[in-house]
Amino acid sequence: MESLNVLGGGAGDLEASLGAIGRKARKAARVLALASPEQKNLALRAAAKFLRARTSDLLQANALDMAAARAKNLAPAMLDRLLLDDKRIAGMAQSLDEIADLPDPVGRLLETFERPNGLRIERVATPLGVVGVIFESRPNVTADAGALCLKAGNAAILRAGSESFHSSRAIHACLVEGLKEADLPQDCISLIPTRDRAAVGAMLTGLSGAIDVIVPRGGKSLVARVQAEARVPVFAHLEGIVHVYVDAEADLAKAEKILLNAKMRRTGICGAAETLLVDRAGADRLLAPLVRLLLDAGCEVRGDAAAQSVDIRVRPAVEEDWSTEYLDAIIAVKLVDGVQGAIDHVETYGSHHTDCIVTENAAKAEKFLREVDSAIVIHNASTQFADGGEFGFGAEIGIATGRMHARGPVGVAQLTSFKYLVHGAGQTRP
Amino acid sequence: MESLNVLGGGAGDLEASLGAIGRKARKAARVLALASPEQKNLALRAAAKFLRARTSDLLQANALDMAAARAKNLAPAMLDRLLLDDKRIAGMAQSLDEIADLPDPVGRLLETFERPNGLRIERVATPLGVVGVIFESRPNVTADAGALCLKAGNAAILRAGSESFHSSRAIHACLVEGLKEADLPQDCISLIPTRDRAAVGAMLTGLSGAIDVIVPRGGKSLVARVQAEARVPVFAHLEGIVHVYVDAEADLAKAEKILLNAKMRRTGICGAAETLLVDRAGADRLLAPLVRLLLDAGCEVRGDAAAQSVDIRVRPAVEEDWSTEYLDAIIAVKLVDGVQGAIDHVETYGSHHTDCIVTENAAKAEKFLREVDSAIVIHNASTQFADGGEFGFGAEIGIATGRMHARGPVGVAQLTSFKYLVHGAGQTRP
Repeated sequence: MESLNVLGGGAGDLEASLGAIGRKARKAARVLALASPEQKNLALRAAAKFLRARTSDLLQANALDMAAARAKNLAPAMLDRLLLDDKRIAGMAQSLDEIADLPDPVGRLLETFERPNGLRIERVATPLGVVGVIFESRPNVTADAGALCLKAGNAAILRAGSESFHSSRAIHACLVEGLKEADLPQDCISLIPTRDRAAVGAMLTGLSGAIDVIVPRGGKSLVARVQAEARVPVFAHLEGIVHVYVDAEADLAKAEKILLNAKMRRTGICGAAETLLVDRAGADRLLAPLVRLLLDAGCEVRGDAAAQSVDIRVRPAVEEDWSTEYLDAIIAVKLVDGVQGAIDHVETYGSHHTDCIVTENAAKAEKFLREVDSAIVIHNASTQFADGGEFGFGAEIGIATGRMHARGPVGVAQLTSFKYLVHGAGQTRP
Repeated sequence: MESLNVLGGGAGDLEASLGAIGRKARKAARVLALASPEQKNLALRAAAKFLRARTSDLLQANALDMAAARAKNLAPAMLDRLLLDDKRIAGMAQSLDEIADLPDPVGRLLETFERPNGLRIERVATPLGVVGVIFESRPNVTADAGALCLKAGNAAILRAGSESFHSSRAIHACLVEGLKEADLPQDCISLIPTRDRAAVGAMLTGLSGAIDVIVPRGGKSLVARVQAEARVPVFAHLEGIVHVYVDAEADLAKAEKILLNAKMRRTGICGAAETLLVDRAGADRLLAPLVRLLLDAGCEVRGDAAAQSVDIRVRPAVEEDWSTEYLDAIIAVKLVDGVQGAIDHVETYGSHHTDCIVTENAAKAEKFLREVDSAIVIHNASTQFADGGEFGFGAEIGIATGRMHARGPVGVAQLTSFKYLVHGAGQTRP
C-alpha cells in the first residue's frame, strides 16, 4: 500500500486507480451479497482480534497523524477526535464484535402476502451493493463503517480524512486480515489510498457506476460539498438544529431534567438541543427556572426579550441564532404560542433531525409528534437518545435527515434494499 | 392556463415560472402531508366524477393531440398510446376511485419496539414530499401518477410528453377540480404548462430543492437522459430484459403454459419475457417443444446453435440479442448449464427487473430466487405478473429496477418515507 500513499503521475493515474477500486468493489459486492452470516461474522471477529493484537502498530500510526496535526496547529477538539489510545482501540474492537452479534439483516422476511390466484409473494431484504463512505478525522469510522457495510452484505469504499490517513490505513489493514481469514475478497472493504481531495470528487460521481450510495460523515463543509456535487444517492446527514419545546402543561421537574440532559450531557453531538422553545401561556411558571438552570450549569443563553428579562446573564438572540447548530454550551431561547407556535418555529428553522415536546397533555404531544416533520420526534425524553445504539440498532453509520430510503439512525437494516420472491404453481396472467 | 401554453420570453421566464411552480408545490406538500384520508379520498373521487362528466371535453382535447401526431406521422403504436376513447376515460376515472379505496399509506405503524429504559419507539409512514413525474405519450399517466402521489400525501409536479399536451391538460383540470372540491391547495398536483424540453432539464436539477424525487415513465431515451442529468434521487425504471429459465427438472406442460403467457400475452409490457434459457441437461426433452410452441404462436425465435437445430424457422441469435428488450413478438433462446449457468447469464445480461425459473426441484428454485439480484424473482409463474395491480398494490407509478428506496412495483406504500416517534416518561440519557 505504501507505494500508493501518494499516487504518482497526476489526474489520469488517480482516475485509473479509483476506477480499478470501483470495479473490484462491485465484483466483491456480488460475492459478499451471497456470503453466509457465519462467514461475515467470522471476518468481523477476526478483524477485532487483529485490532487488539496490533494495538502498538495502531498507536504508532496514530502518532504520525497526531504529530502532523499538531504541526498544523489543529484545534484541540480536532486533535481529540483524531487521537487513538488503548481504550479507544479496545472500543473499536468491541464494536466489531457487537456488530457480529447483531442479527443478520440480509434475507430477513419483511412482508409476505398471498394473492387470490394463489401466488405467494415475499419481500426479503437484500444488500444495497457498494457503499461509499466519506469521513473526516475520527479514525474509528474506518472500522465502524466498514463493519456495518460488511454485515449488511455491502462492499464499502472508504475515504478517510487526510488527518487520519495513517491511522485509518492501519485499521483498514486489520479489516483486510479479517476478510482474508474468512475467505472473503479483500475488495469487500477498500480504503482510498491517497490524500488527494480529487478522490472525493470522483467518489461523488459514483466511480463510473461502481458506487450505489454515498454516506458523508463530517462537518458542514463536507456535507455541503457532497450535496452540491453528488451524482449518486446520498444518505445525507445535515446538521442537528434540535429543539426542546416545553409546553404550558409540562411537569417542571421533568422539563428541567430533560432539558439539562438534552443540552448539557454532551454538547458536541448532533442530538444535543440547540433551541429551547417555551409556551407563552406557561412562561410565568417555566421560563425563569429553565433559563437559570442552564445558566447555572454553565450554558450560555441567548434569548428573546422575555428570556432576557429573566436573568442579567442572558444575551440577546439574533435571527441567526434560531438556525445555528452550536455544538457547544450555548442555547437559544424563545417564547412561542403553544404547540402550534412551536411546530411553526421548528418547521421554519429546524433541520428535520430530532425535536422534542415536554408536556403532560397527550393530545398536544400527539399533535407535535404527528406534525413535526423530523426523523425523530420525542415526547418527554431527552433528545440525546437520537442514536442508533440507543434505538437498539447496534452501531450506526450516521443519522439521516433526508426522506429517501434511510431516515434517522442508519444501522445495518437501513443499509439493505429488498426484492420480491414470487412462489407459483404454474399460474399465468389472464 | 392557455396563456402559459407556450411561455413567452425565453429561458429566464421559463426558469421563473418553474421556480414558482416548485415553491408552490413545496408549500402545498406541507398541507397535503397533514390532510386526512377522507379529504384526500374526497379529492380523488371528485376528480373521477369530473373526468366522467367532461368526457366530451377530454375527447376534443385528445383529438387535437391526435391530429398533430398524425401530421407528424407518428408510429401506429405511439398513436394508440396517445388515443383516448370513452372506455379509456372511464378506466381512468375508475382507477381514481380504486386509489381512493386503498388503505391510506400515511401514518401506518411500520414497526414498534420498546427499549430497556422504557422508551417506546414507533416507526410510522410519512409522505416523501414533492414527486416529479416525467412521462411520455400516455395521457392517462396524468391521472394515475397525480392520484398515487396525492394518496401518499405527496405534491406532484407532472411533465407530460409534448404529444399528449392538450389531453394531459384537460385531465389535469379535472384533478384540480377534485382538489378544489376537497378544499386542498390546487398546487398539490401541478402540470408543467409548456412543451419546452428545457423544463425537463430544470426538473432534473430539482427546481432549486423543490423536488425530492423524480419518477421517469417512458422509453430508453428519456430514462437515459434522466440518469445522465438528474441531480435528485430517481426511481429509475430501466428496461425489462426478462428471462424465463426452464430447468431440466421442469414440468413441460407447466413450462409451456408459463412461457407462452410470459412472452405472448402482451409483448409490449416490461414484464414480457425477452430471453428463454433452457437447461442443457434437459434440452432433449424441453427445447424442441418450447421453441416450436413459440414459433407456432407467431413469435420470432433467435437462437443459439442448439435452438437453430430444432426448427428451420429459428434465426441465429447474435451477441446483442441477449441484452435486447424487444417489446415485440421476438425471443432469444439459449442453452445454459443448469441453474448456475442461468444465474450467470441473468447477472451478465439482465436488467434486474423480473426473472423466472420453471422447475419442480425446490432446492434449485430456492437457489435461483436467492441468487438472482432482480426486483422480482419468480418460481413457476408467468413474468407478466410483474405489475403493481397483480401484487395487490392497486395502481403503480412504475416498476423500479434500482435498489434505493423503491424496488419493483411502486405503489402508494413505496411513495412514502417514515419517521420515528419516541414516547418517554422523563427519561434522560446516562
